[in-house]
Order: sequence, then structure tokens, then C-alpha cells
Amino acid sequence: MNKFMQEAIEEAKKGITDHEGGPFGAVIVKSGEIISRGHNQVVTHNDPTAHAEMQAIRKACEKLKTFSLEGCEIYSTSEPCPMCYSAIHWARIDKIYYGCSRKDAAEIGFDDQLLYDVLKGKNPQKHINSEQIERKACLAPFKEWQESDNKIPY
Amino acid sequence: MNKFMQEAIEEAKKGITDHEGGPFGAVIVKSGEIISRGHNQVVTHNDPTAHAEMQAIRKACEKLKTFSLEGCEIYSTSEPCPMCYSAIHWARIDKIYYGCSRKDAAEIGFDDQLLYDVLKGKNPQKHINSEQIERKACLAPFKEWQESDNKIPY
Repeated sequence: MNKFMQEAIEEAKKGITDHEGGPFGAVIVKSGEIISRGHNQVVTHNDPTAHAEMQAIRKACEKLKTFSLEGCEIYSTSEPCPMCYSAIHWARIDKIYYGCSRKDAAEIGFDDQLLYDVLKGKNPQKHINSEQIERKACLAPFKEWQESDNKIPY
Repeated sequence: MNKFMQEAIEEAKKGITDHEGGPFGAVIVKSGEIISRGHNQVVTHNDPTAHAEMQAIRKACEKLKTFSLEGCEIYSTSEPCPMCYSAIHWARIDKIYYGCSRKDAAEIGFDDQLLYDVLKGKNPQKHINSEQIERKACLAPFKEWQESDNKIPY
């Protein structure tokens, strides 16, 4: 049994016992050591973004005092949803190890399929209603940022 | 000028002045009132998930003491990236108003295209390396959750 995935499973179990959210856990590993642990806390934290992977990413960044987790791996008990996948991308994590598939998760009621479809351009009628307004005014902060000194690109 | 987008622009400007992250702002509105404001704080918070929309979602949920933002609208100075779009989906926000397009953002160095492509199944060679391991062991917390009493589906 992979020892890091075992730890991710322990995290998932913690969340179940305390009714914190869905049964998902994750750990982030750097150079063979666990940097952070996270489990789904959507319900107890009243935070729809508090998925296991997100919690682990935030804690790892806090611990390492950086917004880049290059050189790290994430172990998640379930395939990351598009939000978590994108966060893993922004965090520059090198590798994802996952246990259950999105299909397994759907079978217990956590269905990401609509979101996957929408991001692929399918099911537009179920898409969140989106409207572009005030583009010209919104370009002003972009211009200000470009012209500002000491900006930190990331 | 839309007054809510004006507020989102003010948020974006705040982040530029204090070098907190990218020049992005967002506000969440319910029944014609602003519930929360957020701007990109990736750099100062050392948090790659601290995009404007994410910050606004977390604050709105904290304020309303719920993980569901049904009946709310989000105003973002720029088209939400896939992470934020997915978070808006999970938060059940009704409508997105956005100012700049993803193309405008790419022009000042914030390019989400690779992520969009990957989520569409394109560019797999640039995909984060992913591997499924220990599926059977990871199904255990799923089963435990299904059989647990008092679970809160969301």
C-alpha cells in the first residue's frame, strides 16, 4: 500500500467522522515528505471551495511561504474536480496521484460530469448564465497594472 | 456605468496599489446589495487559489453562513478562469457578469489557454502527469460515507 495514499485515506476518514463534508482526502509531498494534509470541509467551513486538494494546497503554500509548489506531488483519494485540477495547475504541482475515478465519485452522489461537459463546450443550455459588460472600463486596471512599477508577475 | 462592476474595478485597483497579485476584482451581489468583495491576493497571501472570484465567494459564504450562493450574481472585471468558473458552479451562483475577456487577460500575461485546452482534452503532452493508484483502498471511505448516519449531501 502506498504510504502517502494511506495518509490521504486517513484524512478522508477524518472528514466523515466529524461530518465535515464529502469523503475526500489529500496530502502534498515534497522530496518524500508530507508537507500538508487536507480533507473536504465544505459543510463545516461553509466554503464551497474547501475541497480536500484545495485545503492541502493552501496549507502547503502557507507552510512553505510560497505560491508555487513546484517539485511537489499531490495524492488525492479521488480524481480532482475541474476546480481542484485547475488549482493544482496554478500551484505548479508536478504530479497527481489519485485513487477513485470521477465515475466512482458520481456513484456516491458527487457528480462532476456537468462541469466537465460545460468546460468542454457541451451542454451550454445548462451553463451558468454569463454576460460580458463594461469591457472598456475593466481594461483600465489591466493598463494600470502593466504600467505599474514593482509588479510581481506570477 | 454599471455600479457593481464599478465596485469590482475599485477592488482590482486596490490589489494593484498594494502589489497583492494580478489586476482582478470581483463583487458578489444578492437582491441588489453587495455581499462581498474580493481581489487577487495570490502574491501577498502566498495562495495560488486566491483569485478575486474565489476571495469574494469565500467571504460571501462566511457572511451568509452557507456554502450555497443561490440567488447571487458575481461581477468580475475579467472572465473567470476554469478554477473560478468551477468554484462559481459549486457555489451555485446564478449569473456571471464579466468585463475583460480571457484574450484581454492573456495580452497582459495571464494566459489561461493551456488550462482551457487541457480541460477540453487538447495538449495532453503538456498535461500535469496523472496516475491512478490504490483505487480499491480509496473506495473504502466512499463506502464508509455512504453507510454513515447524519451525512449532509451537498
